[in-house]
Amino acid sequence: MRLEILPVEGIGDVTPGDDLAELITGAAPWLRDDDVLVVTSKIVSKAEGRLVEVPADGPERDEARVRALESETARVVARRGPTTIVQTHHGFVMAAAGIDASNVDKTHLVLLPADSDASARRLRADLAARGLDVAVIVSDTMGRAWRNGLTDVALGASGIDALLDHRGEIDPYGNELSLTQMAVVDELSAAAELVKGKCDQVPVAVVRGYPRRVSDADAGVRVLIRDAESDMFGLGTAEAHAQGLRDAAVITDAAQVGDFADPEAGMAAAQRALELVGDVATPGTQIVGSFDHMRLTPGGDEPAGLIRLGVIAHRLRAALAAEGFATRLEIDDQGATLRFGEA
Amino acid sequence: MRLEILPVEGIGDVTPGDDLAELITGAAPWLRDDDVLVVTSKIVSKAEGRLVEVPADGPERDEARVRALESETARVVARRGPTTIVQTHHGFVMAAAGIDASNVDKTHLVLLPADSDASARRLRADLAARGLDVAVIVSDTMGRAWRNGLTDVALGASGIDALLDHRGEIDPYGNELSLTQMAVVDELSAAAELVKGKCDQVPVAVVRGYPRRVSDADAGVRVLIRDAESDMFGLGTAEAHAQGLRDAAVITDAAQVGDFADPEAGMAAAQRALELVGDVATPGTQIVGSFDHMRLTPGGDEPAGLIRLGVIAHRLRAALAAEGFATRLEIDDQGATLRFGEA
Repeated sequence: MRLEILPVEGIGDVTPGDDLAELITGAAPWLRDDDVLVVTSKIVSKAEGRLVEVPADGPERDEARVRALESETARVVARRGPTTIVQTHHGFVMAAAGIDASNVDKTHLVLLPADSDASARRLRADLAARGLDVAVIVSDTMGRAWRNGLTDVALGASGIDALLDHRGEIDPYGNELSLTQMAVVDELSAAAELVKGKCDQVPVAVVRGYPRRVSDADAGVRVLIRDAESDMFGLGTAEAHAQGLRDAAVITDAAQVGDFADPEAGMAAAQRALELVGDVATPGTQIVGSFDHMRLTPGGDEPAGLIRLGVIAHRLRAALAAEGFATRLEIDDQGATLRFGEA
Repeated sequence: MRLEILPVEGIGDVTPGDDLAELITGAAPWLRDDDVLVVTSKIVSKAEGRLVEVPADGPERDEARVRALESETARVVARRGPTTIVQTHHGFVMAAAGIDASNVDKTHLVLLPADSDASARRLRADLAARGLDVAVIVSDTMGRAWRNGLTDVALGASGIDALLDHRGEIDPYGNELSLTQMAVVDELSAAAELVKGKCDQVPVAVVRGYPRRVSDADAGVRVLIRDAESDMFGLGTAEAHAQGLRDAAVITDAAQVGDFADPEAGMAAAQRALELVGDVATPGTQIVGSFDHMRLTPGGDEPAGLIRLGVIAHRLRAALAAEGFATRLEIDDQGATLRFGEA
């Protein structure tokens, strides 16, 4: 295998209603079957009229940007200073929902294509109508967690499988590969970016020689989108931490407490909770218990000691919640009983 | 610009002590100046002897893997089921610290190179000694947050700037680009992966025609590593949430409370905290306050009411901590005063 990455030059300015297939084949009459066409989402958005009119400057411009961001946001993932990272309605996690003010006149913002897989399918069909059997990837520049610098990834695809699955293959040492699914459309997008400039109006590149797999030409990139529940980084660290504090504020007294599958785990968790809270709680309150409950009684009968007992009881609940346990708090005039178990 | 991506075939098995420059130039006598050589970290590790002997199976193998992971881990970022994502001593955030059991015999694990930038520098120097002026990238396959599928990225580099900085460039519409720094060594690694197989023993690929920038040949990939403090995803969502709960358990009564720069913000936060806690707290306790404190008094003189007052006080502290405020709790025999302000 041997690949070529070829820029498509001379496409020029793209405006709403433009026929991308015509523009691209005009600029690249050398396109041929089995090429992989990587098209920057910006020109797809422009051709599709995914533009928002905004004031060229001033606070009205900022307000219009905020409104555009809100309309493109399914949920906010993280915020810090001027940066807002959101999950878009497509499911992509991107800063500012991928809304961009570069490579467009100052009175417009460019939104992502409404359905970038559909955009890729349409362009592929338009090229097929011209007798070209190619794959189409719609790409954009994206930031990542943990690493500085941006890379291009795929927002849409047609005529190519997004993932190349190596699972089940046997390496030369006889080991079966278990986890390796390569996001080849992202790698193709990254490869194409290397020949595109950010300001050079080279919004399309061609990867030639790549033996694409096509088990479902219309499956698109949805398979690359990890839903928030199965994502270990579905929320920013600060946001998840604050949610933990909020959850500590609203543990309900009457929560259902399940039986322990493993009493030893309950005992160990209770021990850790006592150690954690013991470092900061003023002594006085007496605590006895077992693997599924603690009984807190005051050291004397001063009102302040009773108030402190309540504070300590809730601290213990927060510590047990951090261990993943549900708790129920029963308060009486002699003290409080904290029951805990499986959530 | 026009790139070629060329696989280097026939390198075969690599063992500790092997001279990679010799193996690579032997397999690719067609290498020439200005090529970018992308070398899979696995063969670098093997040549450098970064192998750990492990039993071929059984619980001893699992234990040896756990020990290897611990030794390669600077800090744990997230855990879920069998998956542990850590930050390595190099600063990379990777599942299992990049330790791999594929493409090696069953009695060894392969660790990442100890210093992958140094590995890239050495190989580049060895190739320079053979009269070749190339860039060298050491790459590996990595998962990402938010997107399924893996891509190859750079763990080390020499003779090429890791980032290509477009900041300050002016687009055709007169907009200055502000945020665009491309991680080109990651994109080159991804491009190279497209011609490597996972089981085909093609551990090296060459990118030809890329006009690399070299402002500091020895800077390596350190510039790509985002430190945990400036990373909005420095900890897994579940881990950060649990840390919030733990922090709620240990808010110290005697915390220093700063003055409010903005009393209105304090008032609004207090209001939100009361609303949050009010939904779950049993009535009885009376709360009056202002922008920087709340005074809690019991509805009557039953001990249970005093205990509940303590619970409510700590709930409010957790809610205020979620808003980013420090609190101090002063308990007396008539009730409790919660002071809050800038942390």
